[in-house]
Amino acid sequence: MKESDRRTAEGILYTDEYQLTMAQMYFRAGLHERRAQFDHFFRSYPDYDSHKAGYCVNAGLEWLLDWMGDASFRDEDIEYLRQTKGRTGNPLFAEDFLAWLKSSSPGFFTPLTIRAIPEGRVVHPNTPITVVEGPLAVAQILETSLLSHLNYQTLVATKAARIHDSARGNMVMEFGLRRGQEKGANAGARAALIGGVNYTSNVGISHVLGLPPKGTHAHSMVQVFMSLGMSELVAFRAFADVYPDDCTFLVDTIDTLRSGVPNAIKVFEELRRKGHEPVGIRMDSGDLAYLSIRAARMLDDAGFPNTSIVLSNDLDELVIWQIITQISEEAERYGVDADHLIARLVYGVGTRLITSWGEPALGGVYKLVAVQDDSHTAWRPAIKISESSEKTPNPGSKNVWRLYDQRCKATADLICLSDEDLRSMPKITLRHPSDHTKVRVLDSQELCDIEPLLVDAYKDGVVLNNHASIDDMRARRQADVERLDAGVKRLVNPHIYHVSLTENLWNLKQELIQSAMQSSR
Amino acid sequence: MKESDRRTAEGILYTDEYQLTMAQMYFRAGLHERRAQFDHFFRSYPDYDSHKAGYCVNAGLEWLLDWMGDASFRDEDIEYLRQTKGRTGNPLFAEDFLAWLKSSSPGFFTPLTIRAIPEGRVVHPNTPITVVEGPLAVAQILETSLLSHLNYQTLVATKAARIHDSARGNMVMEFGLRRGQEKGANAGARAALIGGVNYTSNVGISHVLGLPPKGTHAHSMVQVFMSLGMSELVAFRAFADVYPDDCTFLVDTIDTLRSGVPNAIKVFEELRRKGHEPVGIRMDSGDLAYLSIRAARMLDDAGFPNTSIVLSNDLDELVIWQIITQISEEAERYGVDADHLIARLVYGVGTRLITSWGEPALGGVYKLVAVQDDSHTAWRPAIKISESSEKTPNPGSKNVWRLYDQRCKATADLICLSDEDLRSMPKITLRHPSDHTKVRVLDSQELCDIEPLLVDAYKDGVVLNNHASIDDMRARRQADVERLDAGVKRLVNPHIYHVSLTENLWNLKQELIQSAMQSSR
Repeated sequence: MKESDRRTAEGILYTDEYQLTMAQMYFRAGLHERRAQFDHFFRSYPDYDSHKAGYCVNAGLEWLLDWMGDASFRDEDIEYLRQTKGRTGNPLFAEDFLAWLKSSSPGFFTPLTIRAIPEGRVVHPNTPITVVEGPLAVAQILETSLLSHLNYQTLVATKAARIHDSARGNMVMEFGLRRGQEKGANAGARAALIGGVNYTSNVGISHVLGLPPKGTHAHSMVQVFMSLGMSELVAFRAFADVYPDDCTFLVDTIDTLRSGVPNAIKVFEELRRKGHEPVGIRMDSGDLAYLSIRAARMLDDAGFPNTSIVLSNDLDELVIWQIITQISEEAERYGVDADHLIARLVYGVGTRLITSWGEPALGGVYKLVAVQDDSHTAWRPAIKISESSEKTPNPGSKNVWRLYDQRCKATADLICLSDEDLRSMPKITLRHPSDHTKVRVLDSQELCDIEPLLVDAYKDGVVLNNHASIDDMRARRQADVERLDAGVKRLVNPHIYHVSLTENLWNLKQELIQSAMQSSR
Repeated sequence: MKESDRRTAEGILYTDEYQLTMAQMYFRAGLHERRAQFDHFFRSYPDYDSHKAGYCVNAGLEWLLDWMGDASFRDEDIEYLRQTKGRTGNPLFAEDFLAWLKSSSPGFFTPLTIRAIPEGRVVHPNTPITVVEGPLAVAQILETSLLSHLNYQTLVATKAARIHDSARGNMVMEFGLRRGQEKGANAGARAALIGGVNYTSNVGISHVLGLPPKGTHAHSMVQVFMSLGMSELVAFRAFADVYPDDCTFLVDTIDTLRSGVPNAIKVFEELRRKGHEPVGIRMDSGDLAYLSIRAARMLDDAGFPNTSIVLSNDLDELVIWQIITQISEEAERYGVDADHLIARLVYGVGTRLITSWGEPALGGVYKLVAVQDDSHTAWRPAIKISESSEKTPNPGSKNVWRLYDQRCKATADLICLSDEDLRSMPKITLRHPSDHTKVRVLDSQELCDIEPLLVDAYKDGVVLNNHASIDDMRARRQADVERLDAGVKRLVNPHIYHVSLTENLWNLKQELIQSAMQSSR
């Protein structure tokens, strides 16, 4: 895409057509500046088919707010809308509406106020993660871009947290740039770093985030030397000459155990004689668990018990789990200490992380929950009935709190109406969002903490509380994950974390459902 | 991401770290300007688990070439590389290498020559789709961005072609912007348009590509009116007032058959009395086949037999197929003509198209196939041995031809060495790429056509043969798909299209494999 086209495609027109037609309709009805409130949330954890997440890691807000700061209707955007025709050839957008868009720019999104759960925090389905309040037409036009920025990063941060977990804290590198959705892979790399990988091979995004990029070398390097009549050994030596202290050799260009590892060891010995310590080897094909055992034995025997063994090739949390299990079972047979080998493994994770393989999209939505009434003073809650009752969104202006039990483990996220203060309630009633038979009552005294999750993120065009570094977000994730019950963190068949409604919110929801159903009869 | 950061993250540093470290190693070895050739290809068709592609549609080249035109080492990129440290704290990149990068910019990719199969054409595994030739270090640095631009668009164009096919030529709209990988969804929308969808809801990308965006409205529009004490009917009327000739109503906010469709029909009647023709209704939840039958009956009875019925909600090629099958079986029972109903359906396809659900990445690779020898006159073919012989890439500088049988259907893609001219051969031998027992001989006289697939795409910094519009690319796709055997186009269990090697290429490949295996002993 050409640069000028990119500015068009990634500016305020980075949206769905219906947002603009609805905005004009609100304008015509005199409702465009009526204050409204939209909740962003997702309905269910990623389900990767053979396994499923029990929690998500929130990510993407900072880049959304950056986008909002830049996006406004430019003259060329207005001119494009002016040229847009309806089915019968008439202009779709009227001049007065275009004039309003234009007069609202730059700073088109400035009238909005946003509260949000910070990036890096653990989040759960059906809780409001991002709450947008402001003029109806402006909040409506934000929808598509908001979802685009938040859905994907949360999806990948979640997958990264699972991979981090299955890798038992060993180093994980993100390698997926070539397999993502083009430039979207940059957002994926950022989310992966928040969610749990240590580094990415993506140079540009590392630069932007202030982290060092990581990498090894490709098969092509060995091939170049071989096709010029030289050998894998010569290629390794040439690489070692340039990077004597940063040598990780890819050992599977020809034959891992008969060529790659022996050649790597030869060059490692040469390096050591010159006073350098080799870093490791990488294997990108074959039975990685078996090959690492055999390679570890060869490295151990040669006096390199601590060089890393980097594994890559369609890894994800389950494949890493399988590799570790296989090593635990088989290593001893080859005279290798399984725990020692597992501790020296490093994982390069590409395709399956950047795409969230098995569930490549998070179904985050943005639903109208309240509109100010004609007096412009009171909020009228909004409802949308769904065929399945668990899909009916929670109405009204709300807050969300996290309740920690006596062990200081998170026991539930509780959604309440804005005017409810959980900290003043001696007994807290938790209702299941759709199943009326499920009620739980907690004694406040017995809780370790009651924590509000939403913080101010954007007001009057100013970004608030959002100066966190990637490390800050990682620290939030780590703290939240530690406060999850072990069952919720299982890679397969996790426990269901409780997301509940207060009695007041439950009652409001039921009233609105009844009233909407009656109006349709 | 801030705008200045975006320029960093999407410029020349939009790459993997190892491309730069390998480039420096080639520089140090005096090989950086040695001419080399890399083939881009993918190894297998997308496999969506329950179904599988039998052909792919090529896409992405134009945007890659645009990127190459803009990307070069800026002062700030060089400065960043200068600051990059190795493990022991020493600078990773030396000044002479940085000076070479700088002196090669702007126009860093200008020394490359690219031949490619044009966008929109049907392509198959293991055939070179993009062939890059030029200075080793420059071609190496291109790898990641090339794969990022081409893998994803080809993946989505392929999915779109399948959806187009299952929709039997009815209108398909792309709705996936909110579920893609952030800005990558723009590339997905373009690819979907090339592959077979008619329109996208994505406004910016429609503008860039010169197509009208399409859309309806969201549930929120109806909710706004309801929460202010008005009804779905009032909301529909307000929308119809603004868009009397472009009215498609979303009918499932409350209850599709008891509220949405009857209210839509009321407003359609009002519109018609005012001389306007309504466009249609949209349904986004529930049993879409059943609901369309019931809604069609209501619309027919009310005198609107030709309004469209737009279906959306996690559609893909199999779901569309299922809906059509169910309508064929059940419509008559409700007094609805199945064929008439199927013909009025329109499909809005979001998540499952933009993510290529079931196979969210195409495993396209970029492999070194030849390097010039020390005399700088002759090419030395390169090989990489793989554990599985079908993964061993085809070596050497090559061409690819498509052979059409007597019916003028494509019967095979044949890969040959650059100096072979298939048109001069009376008998053409086709060897299976890895199975030595499979040989097929064709008599040239009996072929309808022998067509070279690679065309010049880039030379001396100039983009060649690449001024095709989206419509041109769609026409190529249509022509190629029509020349595929019906078995290859099956949505489930397609026939395997033949991709073969000439005898000369087969022999070269075997020699190189033998020689590499011996060198490892």
